[in-house]
Amino acid sequence: MFSLEAELDAMLCFEVALAGAEAECGLIPGEAVGAIVAGAEAFRPDMERLAAATARDGLAVPELVRQLRASVGGEHAEHLHKGTTSQDVIDTALVLRLAALLDLLEHRLGTLLERFEMLAMQVGQMPLTGRTRMQQALPVTYGDRIAAWADPLARQRARLAEVRDAVLVLQFGGPVGTLSAFGDAARPVAEALGRALGLKVPERSWQSGRDGLSVLSAWLATTAGVAGKFGQDVALMAQNELAEVIVAGAGGSSAMPHKQNPVAAEVLVSLARFAATLDGGFRQALVHEQERSGAAWTLEWLLLPQLCVTTARSLGLAIELADALDFPAG
Amino acid sequence: MFSLEAELDAMLCFEVALAGAEAECGLIPGEAVGAIVAGAEAFRPDMERLAAATARDGLAVPELVRQLRASVGGEHAEHLHKGTTSQDVIDTALVLRLAALLDLLEHRLGTLLERFEMLAMQVGQMPLTGRTRMQQALPVTYGDRIAAWADPLARQRARLAEVRDAVLVLQFGGPVGTLSAFGDAARPVAEALGRALGLKVPERSWQSGRDGLSVLSAWLATTAGVAGKFGQDVALMAQNELAEVIVAGAGGSSAMPHKQNPVAAEVLVSLARFAATLDGGFRQALVHEQERSGAAWTLEWLLLPQLCVTTARSLGLAIELADALDFPAG
Amino acid sequence: MFSLEAELDAMLCFEVALAGAEAECGLIPGEAVGAIVAGAEAFRPDMERLAAATARDGLAVPELVRQLRASVGGEHAEHLHKGTTSQDVIDTALVLRLAALLDLLEHRLGTLLERFEMLAMQVGQMPLTGRTRMQQALPVTYGDRIAAWADPLARQRARLAEVRDAVLVLQFGGPVGTLSAFGDAARPVAEALGRALGLKVPERSWQSGRDGLSVLSAWLATTAGVAGKFGQDVALMAQNELAEVIVAGAGGSSAMPHKQNPVAAEVLVSLARFAATLDGGFRQALVHEQERSGAAWTLEWLLLPQLCVTTARSLGLAIELADALDFPAG
Amino acid sequence: MFSLEAELDAMLCFEVALAGAEAECGLIPGEAVGAIVAGAEAFRPDMERLAAATARDGLAVPELVRQLRASVGGEHAEHLHKGTTSQDVIDTALVLRLAALLDLLEHRLGTLLERFEMLAMQVGQMPLTGRTRMQQALPVTYGDRIAAWADPLARQRARLAEVRDAVLVLQFGGPVGTLSAFGDAARPVAEALGRALGLKVPERSWQSGRDGLSVLSAWLATTAGVAGKFGQDVALMAQNELAEVIVAGAGGSSAMPHKQNPVAAEVLVSLARFAATLDGGFRQALVHEQERSGAAWTLEWLLLPQLCVTTARSLGLAIELADALDFPAG
Repeated sequence: MFSLEAELDAMLCFEVALAGAEAECGLIPGEAVGAIVAGAEAFRPDMERLAAATARDGLAVPELVRQLRASVGGEHAEHLHKGTTSQDVIDTALVLRLAALLDLLEHRLGTLLERFEMLAMQVGQMPLTGRTRMQQALPVTYGDRIAAWADPLARQRARLAEVRDAVLVLQFGGPVGTLSAFGDAARPVAEALGRALGLKVPERSWQSGRDGLSVLSAWLATTAGVAGKFGQDVALMAQNELAEVIVAGAGGSSAMPHKQNPVAAEVLVSLARFAATLDGGFRQALVHEQERSGAAWTLEWLLLPQLCVTTARSLGLAIELADALDFPAG
Repeated sequence: MFSLEAELDAMLCFEVALAGAEAECGLIPGEAVGAIVAGAEAFRPDMERLAAATARDGLAVPELVRQLRASVGGEHAEHLHKGTTSQDVIDTALVLRLAALLDLLEHRLGTLLERFEMLAMQVGQMPLTGRTRMQQALPVTYGDRIAAWADPLARQRARLAEVRDAVLVLQFGGPVGTLSAFGDAARPVAEALGRALGLKVPERSWQSGRDGLSVLSAWLATTAGVAGKFGQDVALMAQNELAEVIVAGAGGSSAMPHKQNPVAAEVLVSLARFAATLDGGFRQALVHEQERSGAAWTLEWLLLPQLCVTTARSLGLAIELADALDFPAG
Repeated sequence: MFSLEAELDAMLCFEVALAGAEAECGLIPGEAVGAIVAGAEAFRPDMERLAAATARDGLAVPELVRQLRASVGGEHAEHLHKGTTSQDVIDTALVLRLAALLDLLEHRLGTLLERFEMLAMQVGQMPLTGRTRMQQALPVTYGDRIAAWADPLARQRARLAEVRDAVLVLQFGGPVGTLSAFGDAARPVAEALGRALGLKVPERSWQSGRDGLSVLSAWLATTAGVAGKFGQDVALMAQNELAEVIVAGAGGSSAMPHKQNPVAAEVLVSLARFAATLDGGFRQALVHEQERSGAAWTLEWLLLPQLCVTTARSLGLAIELADALDFPAG
Repeated sequence: MFSLEAELDAMLCFEVALAGAEAECGLIPGEAVGAIVAGAEAFRPDMERLAAATARDGLAVPELVRQLRASVGGEHAEHLHKGTTSQDVIDTALVLRLAALLDLLEHRLGTLLERFEMLAMQVGQMPLTGRTRMQQALPVTYGDRIAAWADPLARQRARLAEVRDAVLVLQFGGPVGTLSAFGDAARPVAEALGRALGLKVPERSWQSGRDGLSVLSAWLATTAGVAGKFGQDVALMAQNELAEVIVAGAGGSSAMPHKQNPVAAEVLVSLARFAATLDGGFRQALVHEQERSGAAWTLEWLLLPQLCVTTARSLGLAIELADALDFPAG
């Protein structure tokens, strides 16, 4: 989802949809759309020149547009990328992939919550020693502990609506965010483009207003964080003297064959702290200068893809761990 | 709002409301409520002993309850703090103050947005050099730049509904979060208590589920971050060679009387980065152990109050800066 | 050490030493020094005006110099603060207090290491279950565990020489860091000033080169981090089922009189994570603009004082915890 | 340097050197060394099984040892990996690669400092407007500004001695850090191993004492941070109205052919903030549990390799940027 190929695909998708929207509004000839669609389908990027140009320009779009225009060819090449700018392409291509990511994460959250429900049905009534500040407190049940894992994740799932509302928004502003090249056609083109891509159309572009992505970043790290609490608890419960849980298929040791290491539980904690670290940097990236900050925008690119992967992995691992839990005979 | 006095007041408020709710459900005699109200009103904490006990216990509540029971006196003293635990008192007392904080921040956001609207009316049509990657790009207007400051703040204001939904939630779970001491009365007491305090009553306590506070923390830092973008822009615009803005009453220098330092603009950037830093730590605090983590919970206390103050100050300063902006004669 | 009073004292100390150094080099009349010393001794700051001016100027020095000149009075008032700038005063005043802080921390590290040595003598030979990845591994001794607490702290103590070398450096550059007002006298004045204050004199000022403070910040957070490992271990060892350690005088609970909470152990973990958080922000403050960045410099002020206090408290608490440790009868 | 291949190579290097050291001390037969060397040379890892086992065990070593034993074959296979543990292999293999990394970084620092020296010779005397708090202050020279870039990097280079002292240390402790399997031979084997690998031999293993790596991490982020100041300054100097510097071969724009974006300057700022972010997480990883923390150790792996790459890239980019700087005709 964050491979170069996926990014190029999403970028082509933007350029094609833009041509369609501009034709719809009479800004480019209808035949140009067909030529651009054909050019995009036939397109085989010269990855070496793309990499070299990216290093020079700080982003891939100028060279990509150049190559893609060559692939479209003829008189219609100039109608490609009309009135838009690199940031529109890159941000919208990101948003399109985030839409798919959020679907994936919602699915994983659902699966994990089902697993917790099954565990609760299985051992929910069994007594467990409630512990506060790492000390025995009063009796609870396994069901209480499992609910403490599930509740925050269920709330995070419910918050996905807010995250989608914040993030699944078309970026379309042209060179300085004002769509000035379009005159009165700006709004109709934007709306046609948003319709084609299935994205909300904001009143103005958000080229320097990164609050929506910040909402996403915090949601990702919070989700990994509450999954980390599940991992931390399992690691504590699996301590030999407590033996409140057994982790099936736990990891081996190169020196001590008898050991069963609750690796997944520990890695959930690592991923929680890693996600927290990345997300902390994201908020530093909010200080965009003027109409577009190269520095802050590049920082986003260094942080967000791996934060997405981290949270996706965290939920996947949490499902595996939930599947691997065994309990002492009550 | 985060003074010790404010915290003690909110804690007394919880204890009094709890007694009322318990009496309403027939768990303690009605007369106890009067005695507890009177005891709370007459209460003068012995701050020295409170501080010493806090250092020992890691929190103030055990000693506070001891002192407050002495203030209530007589047979009703034992009805105070019945079935609850320190965390219920501390978390709910926090939430009550956060409710007031969010009102304050909403008010400041509103004021700031009004200032931006006024500025837009005043100079919105004036041309401004649009700049991307710190280079001249294409012409925009002052209105475009101001909109880039206002839009994210308007979205953050709209998100306050989600933040309140996440945070303004009663904490009430007893020693291990299960309200086990109340039996069937647990739900009715919780509902009466929530009603009295104006807080949502969750299905289960959130003693180890800190996602709601994480939502708040991220919102605070995101808000300070977008205010930081306003400060950064003003600092750049006020550069002598650009002179796109004049900051009235700017700061003086001890060595260069001619200088006008755009102090408020720079401090907005500092506060944005400080808020980002604190918020990054907050996500580390999500990994709560078992029914209650002393380590993670204490970390929250070190971070959240100053994050609240930072964002409140950031918005206050942004209002002052917006008021101080002058523009070159168009 | 980080109170306003301590800062003002250190600032006066700088101004007085500067006058002495300038007189020594013949830049101001010798009698001016006496007048300035007397003015500094008699000085009673008008704190209200100082606070108001600080808010306006972003720092206290311009108003402080104004008030101090009034206190010196007469013809010598103008000789105060000659050729220097706010940043020289503030940074050097910080360094002077950091020198005292580092002495304090070294003393605490020494005390803590002595405590660990005593514990090792007392129970070092006793067997302990070695644990890796939270699972029983092979037998070790209490001495091995204690050495794992002591070794990193001993190394951190040894690194204090590097930290002092990085930090205890005079800041003296004048308005733009070049000491241009002094001409050929620049170097002799700097050296006389450094001698008077007991600070190293660098070849050039470090007004925008904050690597030295970054070294300090990382050392502080690393020290709190390794103290946090001690706390984490004690919290794990004090679990009821493991009972590898007993914490005397542990904290009470408002709801469960039987509990003994290892509060100090948990707070050590909180302080470690809080110090890590603050230190992460410090590195963001390295990006100073041009000759002096108001934004990055202000960020330092928000972070460094509380980081110093956090590490000092962490070491103090670690000593208390080491003193409170009891062990099961071997 | 952080590829899987490089890591496997370094691990084989450790296993071979260990066999040599153990043979030297008479713990395994001399012929075993030859067999192990041959087995290591002939070794072709089954990467698929390695990946699967790594996912299960949380680290690659147990499966690697299994495969490597098969490659050694015969009676000598059992002498491989004797008395050691995964962490010894992984940490020492890391340290060996860090030695090469530090050499590379020192070389790049040297090159960059030479470039700054050349720039200073070329334009050092030219006047430049000194700027503090983003406002014109007093005149300085280009030489002063360049010195402000070079000085902190020169100091960081000098600090490499301390970093090497902290990091280039053998990890060798066996399953729980005590080398218990070796009895009296522990020290001689460790010393022979350290000699063979060119690493310092500590008194005790540092399996849970990660202060040395924390020193490295902070040095890396501080170095990237001061390189970020260079980038920030260039981005400001290259503003059209200031035109204090021209960046040759600057990046192009997809929409505005006239623009020359100082991409490298901005990316230096991004890398500085990214390095700061990663380093902040590293200090969170200091809280290791007991003899070995899977959670904290895994967190290191997520952070340190990309931090190394970030700083190496930052210095490389700074050299490129220094080479690309042109100056207005004085």
